[in-house]
Amino acid sequence: MTAFVDRRTGLDVIERPECLALLGQARVGRLVAASGGSVEIFPVNFALDGDDIVFRSAAGTKVRLAQRSEVAFEVDEIDQGSRTGWSVVARGHVDEVPPYYSALYAETLGVDPWSEGDKPHVLRIRVRTVSGRRIAR
Amino acid sequence: MTAFVDRRTGLDVIERPECLALLGQARVGRLVAASGGSVEIFPVNFALDGDDIVFRSAAGTKVRLAQRSEVAFEVDEIDQGSRTGWSVVARGHVDEVPPYYSALYAETLGVDPWSEGDKPHVLRIRVRTVSGRRIAR
Repeated sequence: MTAFVDRRTGLDVIERPECLALLGQARVGRLVAASGGSVEIFPVNFALDGDDIVFRSAAGTKVRLAQRSEVAFEVDEIDQGSRTGWSVVARGHVDEVPPYYSALYAETLGVDPWSEGDKPHVLRIRVRTVSGRRIAR
Repeated sequence: MTAFVDRRTGLDVIERPECLALLGQARVGRLVAASGGSVEIFPVNFALDGDDIVFRSAAGTKVRLAQRSEVAFEVDEIDQGSRTGWSVVARGHVDEVPPYYSALYAETLGVDPWSEGDKPHVLRIRVRTVSGRRIAR
């Protein structure tokens, strides 16, 4: 399925349609954002709405990101036994789903947080670009 | 083993000794860095030297990070079946191991890249802080 190799890294390039398919199969990814000179990373469970990534959040860092610069969202699968794996990174801006609509929207998509804390905010990454790399044998 | 709960998120706090133990058992983590207004994330296989995180790299983004601000390094384990998991994030600055020393150093630690690309640079995160969260049932 892979057409290109990234010569610098030796990794196979995963094309956009397969990146989106891999994102669609994943249930947990990692939200990555710059925050005042440092970087933050949070695993979150999510669902796709079209190409957009939707997840719930408590008040706090993730919600503040909604007003900020572009974020990255990474999913991967790594097999230590065969030393193979892939990683897909989506990029885009975050917006918050309006509160009057968010609970029903999240429920419809099946975005159901695993942790017990209250997560009233529903955030959506408007995916602008997606890229992926794979180590195959 | 967990003493505290993060009330805002509902997640259990993993204390530093257990964070370091979990880092020590992992073989692959994710290097996270700010890069000119955007954020980058790269899965890498690594080894620990004391509390420091050591990995190999081709020339390019990861090496440029060596001259920059603090990075984060994340390892996690997620079980979709039980909807449990943990995530540990280490933070620190990256330096490059001197070339005359790097090949032997990496070999001694067992840092052996999975991909076939040439990775002459050996980078080390001087870990300053480490934190972790867990969702247990």
